[in-house]
Amino acid sequence: MKIWGDKHRGNPVRVAVFLEEKGVDIPFEPVDLLKGEHKTAAFLAKNPSALVPVLELDDGTYIAETMAICRYLERQYPDPPLMGRSPLEEAVIEMWQRRVELEFYAAARAVFRHSVPALQALEPVQVAAWAELNSPRVLSAMEMFEPQLAQHRFLAGDEFTVADITAVMPLQMIKALGIEVPEDCPSVARWRKAIFARPCVVSVLHPSQP
Amino acid sequence: MKIWGDKHRGNPVRVAVFLEEKGVDIPFEPVDLLKGEHKTAAFLAKNPSALVPVLELDDGTYIAETMAICRYLERQYPDPPLMGRSPLEEAVIEMWQRRVELEFYAAARAVFRHSVPALQALEPVQVAAWAELNSPRVLSAMEMFEPQLAQHRFLAGDEFTVADITAVMPLQMIKALGIEVPEDCPSVARWRKAIFARPCVVSVLHPSQP
Repeated sequence: MKIWGDKHRGNPVRVAVFLEEKGVDIPFEPVDLLKGEHKTAAFLAKNPSALVPVLELDDGTYIAETMAICRYLERQYPDPPLMGRSPLEEAVIEMWQRRVELEFYAAARAVFRHSVPALQALEPVQVAAWAELNSPRVLSAMEMFEPQLAQHRFLAGDEFTVADITAVMPLQMIKALGIEVPEDCPSVARWRKAIFARPCVVSVLHPSQP
Repeated sequence: MKIWGDKHRGNPVRVAVFLEEKGVDIPFEPVDLLKGEHKTAAFLAKNPSALVPVLELDDGTYIAETMAICRYLERQYPDPPLMGRSPLEEAVIEMWQRRVELEFYAAARAVFRHSVPALQALEPVQVAAWAELNSPRVLSAMEMFEPQLAQHRFLAGDEFTVADITAVMPLQMIKALGIEVPEDCPSVARWRKAIFARPCVVSVLHPSQP
């Protein structure tokens, strides 16, 4: 197996953190998005959506979409479980993963890609009003997480799961944007610190650190 | 079990079609979004994201997020399988489900909610430039589906799956918007006809038809 995408950038980070947490080593093959390598015919044959990451199986099958890749890897390397042990755990983790993805990450990404001038290379038409509309959604997602994180160590309960991994990218984005965790969300602040300090996250985001 | 949400409207439709295909009957409890019933304290206690559908289990546990609900129901009622039999099938179906959701549905929904004046009740700040940016994405998603549907009856292969079910809402939206299937996508047109004619879809969208 190998994974197409830069292990330290964008959505491939999510798969890299997932694998680090499981202690599994699969090689990554960088794809330079700024050079448009994801839009070449060779890459589109792997993923017609022109997105990274893509998992290449040994028989040449390609699996795109971060969560589809994670679920496949979860079946191959079940320990430690990051997507639930029972149907109920699986559903609760998927619910929180999607809340992070569709409310927090989507909003942070909208602000990031539509308000940072340097990102015009990836987002040729930047819609300022779209960034503005999403800005309060970033905060309301954190407000929504607060009661859950006041009761549990992590988003989907007391164990670290793929729902927390999905939060790594938006947490990085809001840091880059200078958006603070709201003052009435001390549990979100505590959780963010724990995520950024977790070895699987450190080793992917800051590979040069000891 | 019961499901909170109007069986014939919005995302609860996806769960309703999923259950119809499996021949399982679970009662739906309507939630009137136009009256703001999803923003009441009673509803927010079920789902702090203020979204339908929500699955209520017999022990009082609530599961939100359409795909988390479908996965839970898939485990309880495995036949016919709509989310895959093996890890590879599961991954391929999840990949296509997400392509539909994140490329086709998200784009159609952006155009629909940000360009139809009547939808201001649900989308108070409509951003015309966002609708405009998403309009070509609706078409490019269909172009991306075409080669796959030229080779297979359904999106994730020759069997009807949850990936096709996710397409029901965006297919309805583009019909309402008057967006045609591109002429160079005959397989998408054939597939759309099959989706709208499928008994599980007909019985949810047009419950009064014989």
